[in-house]
Amino acid sequence: MSQTSPPIFADILAAAARIAPHAHVTPVLRSRSLDELAGAHLHFKCENFQRMGAFKFRGACNAVWSLSDAEAAAGVVTHSSGNHGAALALAAHTRGIAAHVVVPAGAVAVKIAAIKAYGATVHECAPTMAARDAMAAELQTKLGARLVHPFTDPAVIAGQGTAALELLKQAGELDIVLTPVGGGGLIGGTAIAVAGIAADTRVLGAEPEGAADAYESLRRGERVTDLKADTVSDGLRGVIGEINFDLLRAHRVEVLLVSDAETLAAMRLIWSRLKILAEPSAATALAAVLRHRERFAGRRVGLIVSGGNADLEQLLR
Amino acid sequence: MSQTSPPIFADILAAAARIAPHAHVTPVLRSRSLDELAGAHLHFKCENFQRMGAFKFRGACNAVWSLSDAEAAAGVVTHSSGNHGAALALAAHTRGIAAHVVVPAGAVAVKIAAIKAYGATVHECAPTMAARDAMAAELQTKLGARLVHPFTDPAVIAGQGTAALELLKQAGELDIVLTPVGGGGLIGGTAIAVAGIAADTRVLGAEPEGAADAYESLRRGERVTDLKADTVSDGLRGVIGEINFDLLRAHRVEVLLVSDAETLAAMRLIWSRLKILAEPSAATALAAVLRHRERFAGRRVGLIVSGGNADLEQLLR
Repeated sequence: MSQTSPPIFADILAAAARIAPHAHVTPVLRSRSLDELAGAHLHFKCENFQRMGAFKFRGACNAVWSLSDAEAAAGVVTHSSGNHGAALALAAHTRGIAAHVVVPAGAVAVKIAAIKAYGATVHECAPTMAARDAMAAELQTKLGARLVHPFTDPAVIAGQGTAALELLKQAGELDIVLTPVGGGGLIGGTAIAVAGIAADTRVLGAEPEGAADAYESLRRGERVTDLKADTVSDGLRGVIGEINFDLLRAHRVEVLLVSDAETLAAMRLIWSRLKILAEPSAATALAAVLRHRERFAGRRVGLIVSGGNADLEQLLR
Repeated sequence: MSQTSPPIFADILAAAARIAPHAHVTPVLRSRSLDELAGAHLHFKCENFQRMGAFKFRGACNAVWSLSDAEAAAGVVTHSSGNHGAALALAAHTRGIAAHVVVPAGAVAVKIAAIKAYGATVHECAPTMAARDAMAAELQTKLGARLVHPFTDPAVIAGQGTAALELLKQAGELDIVLTPVGGGGLIGGTAIAVAGIAADTRVLGAEPEGAADAYESLRRGERVTDLKADTVSDGLRGVIGEINFDLLRAHRVEVLLVSDAETLAAMRLIWSRLKILAEPSAATALAAVLRHRERFAGRRVGLIVSGGNADLEQLLR
């Protein structure tokens, strides 16, 4: 990566302009019955309606279109348990360049199918961060392709921040913006965007108890990387990145934990009340609102519904 | 019912104005991947985002707000396997009047819960049309309440037609408009609306093989009322009404059959590609496009996604 310092608000504004020809402006939905249930005013930013079905397209698209023509010609490579891989594949497709995606064995089938459908080459590796990093580095060296990391790449973080930028324009003043926390690309970009527009708005994260590395890192004051993820929220199994952890601390982001049962119950509520598909990872935000309700009572809350690529083969009878 | 002649185009325009303060203008969604799969240009009119989650609110709302103040004071009564009951309950709520809903034993739990949540009184009866009619008539007599039939009431039919009215405005010129067929309220209203705006646009219906009364009625040239419904599409088990059958013939509507397996496969496609919840009944339209693809090849097709009140308890693991 050429840039290793974190992005700033101007980078998010630039990203918004850069991805505008390719990305959707997603709708913000509301629900009287969910507001009643939560005792708060909820604004759901529907990134499940983003291209390829998740906010991840924003970051990947910004990274791909930030490359010079010479850099782009060699293609891009990444590792991803799913959504970022599909996002980079589609982003590369919009620029007509090659994409190589390293996928851990056992990743969600529908996400792997999407990566292939967008024309990328899939490389399977063992399901550990070390194996992923090694294979991605190998491909990068062999092909000369640019590595676009799923959450530590500053261009990716800046791209993810454009979702909150839109949300704040669409929903007006919010007391809290709440996003799922995995590797920290979305929450990092969100923290920068919110600080740039609405300094009084709090940014909170929702993280599964079974992948509580960001929560633990903040609690201990140092990045915890040795937890083994075990959660139904397949998009949130990544370990918080260094640059991302620094952003959480700089912006005093707090992380709230949710159980998988709470996440699945919240997912059903989103499906049945909003009539939209949200994947489990995306439902952690509503799960956090319902579990920690005293934190949200009477507040105007923006929730980023991060994606809709639920594995229906797994979830349906 | 005071009016027994079928509604005309002017009634649909009046209905649109009458329900505008209460009903949502629902979005029309498109999907590149579904267009490719079908080999046609598909425009999905998302009535799953209508209030209470189905187009039925349009008809019920038009019926409730068509009553004089004196009529309205005695309340409304109906029988319904689900969506119309919730629709009438909510419509009555918007006018602050009482609603009584006769529901057959075995109706979808989530729909009964919705009826109660909107403040209506639920009366359970045996799961036959005769039992429903008898109990509704009894309540009507006892309470002096107005019967709002789910699909033969002309005000209901006119209300349902407003969905196609919006669709044609939103999507522009269409070759075909396709709706699910149950009792015939939606397809009847649609046929009138389309004839009034776009005389060259064909109206087609999609009906489950296990509830093929409209298909059989058109084939035999007389209304068939003795078929026993057996289909996963719980909203389409009703028998085509007389006034509705007359409308199908007057507008030369053709009905296409689909199997339950085709419906469930189409439902999964809608969920996974459009990222929206559609109930099985609503998926029959896409199922018909995919089964009878030669009829739709290269055409601009509007599909009414009739509702999103899927029974997640049944469908999810």
